[in-house]
Formats: sequence, C-alpha cells, structure tokens
Amino acid sequence: MDAKTAKKRTTALAVRLKERNLGGSLITDRANVTYLTGFCGDDSWALIIGRRVWLLTDSRYTEQAKGECVGCKIIQRKDSLVAEVAKIVSRFKSAGVLGIENTPSVAVYDKVRKKLKAGFKKTGNLVKQLRAIKEPAEVADIRKASSIADAALDRALKRLKVGMTESELAGRIEFEIRKAGAVVAFETIVCFGANVSQPHHIPGKRRLRKNNTILIDFGAKYKGYNSDKTRCFAVGKVKGGFQKAYDAVALAQKTAIDLIAEGVSAKDIDAAARKVIKKRGFGVFGHGLGHGLGLEVHELPVLSPKSKDILKAGQVVTVEPGIYIPGKFGIRIEDDVLVTKTGQKIITRTKTSPLLRVIKCK
Amino acid sequence: MDAKTAKKRTTALAVRLKERNLGGSLITDRANVTYLTGFCGDDSWALIIGRRVWLLTDSRYTEQAKGECVGCKIIQRKDSLVAEVAKIVSRFKSAGVLGIENTPSVAVYDKVRKKLKAGFKKTGNLVKQLRAIKEPAEVADIRKASSIADAALDRALKRLKVGMTESELAGRIEFEIRKAGAVVAFETIVCFGANVSQPHHIPGKRRLRKNNTILIDFGAKYKGYNSDKTRCFAVGKVKGGFQKAYDAVALAQKTAIDLIAEGVSAKDIDAAARKVIKKRGFGVFGHGLGHGLGLEVHELPVLSPKSKDILKAGQVVTVEPGIYIPGKFGIRIEDDVLVTKTGQKIITRTKTSPLLRVIKCK
Repeated sequence: MDAKTAKKRTTALAVRLKERNLGGSLITDRANVTYLTGFCGDDSWALIIGRRVWLLTDSRYTEQAKGECVGCKIIQRKDSLVAEVAKIVSRFKSAGVLGIENTPSVAVYDKVRKKLKAGFKKTGNLVKQLRAIKEPAEVADIRKASSIADAALDRALKRLKVGMTESELAGRIEFEIRKAGAVVAFETIVCFGANVSQPHHIPGKRRLRKNNTILIDFGAKYKGYNSDKTRCFAVGKVKGGFQKAYDAVALAQKTAIDLIAEGVSAKDIDAAARKVIKKRGFGVFGHGLGHGLGLEVHELPVLSPKSKDILKAGQVVTVEPGIYIPGKFGIRIEDDVLVTKTGQKIITRTKTSPLLRVIKCK
Repeated sequence: MDAKTAKKRTTALAVRLKERNLGGSLITDRANVTYLTGFCGDDSWALIIGRRVWLLTDSRYTEQAKGECVGCKIIQRKDSLVAEVAKIVSRFKSAGVLGIENTPSVAVYDKVRKKLKAGFKKTGNLVKQLRAIKEPAEVADIRKASSIADAALDRALKRLKVGMTESELAGRIEFEIRKAGAVVAFETIVCFGANVSQPHHIPGKRRLRKNNTILIDFGAKYKGYNSDKTRCFAVGKVKGGFQKAYDAVALAQKTAIDLIAEGVSAKDIDAAARKVIKKRGFGVFGHGLGHGLGLEVHELPVLSPKSKDILKAGQVVTVEPGIYIPGKFGIRIEDDVLVTKTGQKIITRTKTSPLLRVIKCK
C-alpha cells in the first residue's frame, strides 16, 4: 500500500466518523487493521484519532510493521492493547467520543468499555463497508491471486493418479500455491465421488477411482488479497445424470452473473440462480449464492435469499450455485466477479461458461 | 468422540452452569462447539439446556454433522442462527436464564440479547476452562499430530537445496502433512538468515544460501487437535555467536520445562526462562513463554509475565523461549508439554534438550 492509498482510506473513514460526531475509532479486526495501515500481521490494533493513525503491536511484529505500514505511528506495546489505547486516548481528550467496530468479542469490548469509560460508541461495520468497494489495485491483486491458484491447480492435476487421496491432491495444490510465492486463502476442499454432496467436505483418505467425479474449492492469497473458485471434474466416463446437473449449475451461474450490475439487488441475483436450478428439476442449494471477497474470503456484500445489499460498482463477489444429491454427487461452480457501473467482469476466467472438464488419468 | 466422552463434557458444563443458577448455555465459538458435540465444521452453534444438546448448522454441514456428532440433536436451520435458538428456547422457558460465553462478537451478542430479552447472562469462558484440562485421548491426538508434523519436516528437509525459497520449503512441509492425511495447524513459518529476527515472519521469496540459519515453526492438526513446535537449523557452518545464543535458548527452555508441574504459577515458569537468557547476556523475548494447546493453537493457560494461571495436571502447554537480534539472527525452540501431578512430560520429543541440527545441503 502506498501513502496516497493509506491517506485516502483513513480520510474516507474520518469523514464517516465525523458524520456520526465521533473523533476517531478503535479498529480491532485484523483485516480492517490491514486495510487502514498496510500491516499484515496478527494480534494488533489500529487507533484513529482525527487524521492520526497508530498501529499497536508487539515485539514479534515490530520489524514487519516497519516494513509494511505507511502513514501511521507504530507502537510496540509494553502493556495490554487496551491499556496502550488508554494511554494514547488520555492525551487526546479533545477528540471526544470514539467509535468501535462491531467485530471484537464481547470480552474485548467489555474491557475497552471498562478501561475507557463512556468514551466509546459502536459504529457497526464502517470499515467493512469501505472495504467492500475495491480500488483497481485491489482487483488486480485478486486477479493475480486467482491466476496463481489456477496455475497451481493445473500443475497439481498433471500429477493426478487413480489411488491418490483427496488430502494429497489438496496438499499438492497448496504446495504449488506456496511455491509460487503466495499463501493459501483457505483450507483447500477436495472431494472425490459421493463425498461431493457435502459442500464443505474436509479432504480425507478417500482414494480416487477410475470413474470418479471431483470437486475442488480453492484459492490463493496474494499481497493479502484472496481468490475463491470452485471447479468440478469427471475422471473417465461422465454419467448422464451428472452432466445434466452440471449443465443446470453452469446455466444458473451464467444467468446470475449476467444480472450483476451496480444497483441490482443481491437477493434478486440469488433468486435468479435458484430459479434455473428448480426449473431443471433439481433441489436448490442450501447455502447463499455468493459473498464479497477481498482481504477476507468472506466479506460484504452478501448474495443470499435474505440479503438486503444492493450491488455497487467496485465490489467483488463470488457466484457459486450448486446441486448436491446426498450419497450420489455434488456440483458447484464458483467464480469471482467485479461489479461495474454497467454490468460485470469475471475475474477468474475469460470464457463465460466453463465446460465440464473430463480428465483422463493413470 | 464417543458418547461417553460427550456426556462427560456436557455434564461437567451443566454442573458449572447450575452453580451459577443457569439452566443452560449458548455456545458460539467453533472449538467450544467441537468440544461439546464432536462437530468439526464451521458457522454452527451449540445450545445446551439442562442435559439436552442441540447443534444448529446449515445444509452445507448436515451430512458431516450426522457423521461426527454424538448425543446431540442436529438442527438444519432454515432461519438465522439466533432465530433458531429463539425457537428452541421458547419451548423450554422453565430452564430460566441461560449462559453465553464471552467469545461471540459484539454484533452477535447484541443480536442474541435483542432476540432473547433478559434471558442470557455472560459466563466468561467456562468451556475454554474445561478444554484446558485434556483427557488422555486428547493428549494422544496432539502427540499423533506432532509425530505427523515431525515426519513431514524430515521429508521436506531431505529436499532442501541452496536456492530454495522460504515459501517453497513451507509449502513442502505442509504438503507432507496433508499427504499423511492430517491438515496444517497454522500457516507454517519458515525464515532464512536475518529474517529470523522477526519471530512471526511470513515465508517469502528469500532463497536459502550456503551458510544460512533457518527457523521453522510448524504444526499439524489431527482429529481436530493441533501440535505446535519450532526448530532452528544451521546450513553449513555455525557461527560462534549463533551457537552461544542457541545454547542459551535451549537452557532457558530446559529450565522452564523442568519447573512445570501441577500447582506451579505460570508466570514463575515464564520468569525462569527469561532469567537464564538475561544471565547469558541476551535481551529477553518480547512474546510470552507459551500457551495452552488443543482444539485451538492458542488456548488456556497462558505462560507470560502477567499470567495469573496456576498449572493443573492434564494441561498441555507450549514452551518457546527465543532470542532475536534484528538484522542478524533469531532463535526459538518450542515444544509441547503435558502437565502432570508430579511434573511434566514432553509430548513433542523424547530427549530433554535438542542439539542444534546442522544440515549439509546441495
């Protein structure tokens, strides 16, 4: 993050705080801290008072913070985070009431309230709302994360063999992501055969058979930004039922993506995907259609039947309909999509609808 | 988890709730949910009323929950988690006031309070306190996780080459953990050379040189239980300053471990390690000496200068002193130790003090 970006973000927050008569805010959520300071480590808080920004960290991270942070003062804490915040706040009493996001645990919140009596007010998720609209550089990082993940998958699939375990294939994809210099966005999901009907199955000792289907849900994290994508494959022969369900999911995804544009209601997009799947005679998926994506794998907005979100240009969302038939098979197709003023751009691939990839393996 | 264990755990919780005049408790923390129900998935809550236990999950996890849970009723939710809890609670009004742990976010807590007016009281971290004392089967799982991680490290080190990046070595260790059927406990830390002075450095593109030092902080997760261990290596020649510091860290660790036993104050153990390092003329480490380990990588008790914890038999803690000299090198040695009535048992190795391993590599 450059100094200009850091200033732009903290200014945007300061404006929103001022509208609420708040003189600053305490930021405890890891991704929110990263967004405002550039710091990518853990166990650290940011404090904003006026246009001043502090990063409160400990000695494990001081060197890293010096390399990553711009436009903020780094405090290597000697006391608890709450006590260090209190020290700074006591020097800026004129700032008045400060905000606190709704992310800390009740235990942390109670400590802050006790130590800094009457000086804090809940602000909801102001920073998360700012984070939902991506700058072009953030979109570029998600795109790069996605291309690293794609290359990793291709390399891993080249080693696919009948008899390989789900766990080994997951590990192989993750190794290739790490080798490319990125990190893993989340624990890779690999399911063979009937396991696939569990949408969030943990890869285990199941071994690949000659005529299995495979579901892989995977992502890389590059410069803090995550990609998140799901693909299905058939090894050997494709059964008719599977192909029919796959086509329904692909059409549901295409229909939903085509609808995406600034101003469209998130729940309408979710509904459009479900309608296609229902019309083709399948049961609808139990999870939401998608979610925002950025510094966290799940962020705002939410694409689900109960979402109240209206899409805005600059948001990046996943679109991931599925069909799951317990004991038989499961299919999910997921891509990451940038919302634009007039429509959308798919970040995670070039073609509009992915054909079912059939793999021949040893 | 077997039915007997599940019953033992929920009974232990019920007793503590009754002492506080509470008729049950809402459990929102993932590891706490796992501990009480056996369920290892995400986004799910447990509700305890009297001796009854419910797992509230969604369709992504229903199949998994059926396989993992014992002694609890699985609810595939149609509404929000809070709304589903309200439905059950309304049927058991005679249960009186229920407890809620201090782990949910302020946002979640506020929702619960709003929806279930006056019926909830904060219980602090009752379940985390129960989790701190491990059953023999839990210790066995941590031990197994550790041995999987050790074997993974050995296999990865066999491929160590001058020119290999930190990121690739980290990925190789993680691949071997996955291949063995376990998952990674946390993002593996690999540091070459001067990076090592950052205790929580993220592996990057730095390449191994002929006479580098290496720090590796790694762990596996087996059946939900984590191991956590740090080792240092020297490639090629060991410089005198490094060896001297290494010996100080090893002695600090041994001194601390020897002190561990039921009834000993955690902060005294932390102090003993620091004393050794100071006496040898080095600056003390900025992090705590260690932490509890189990379903989470960081749990109770805490070994630090400000800890108020008194060790109890059955706890498993890490012991990880270090010396970090910015721009020069960093050393940390970490093992996992079981507290017993009369002393301690090191879970992560057999010998008492690890010698510095010197690796010759291509």
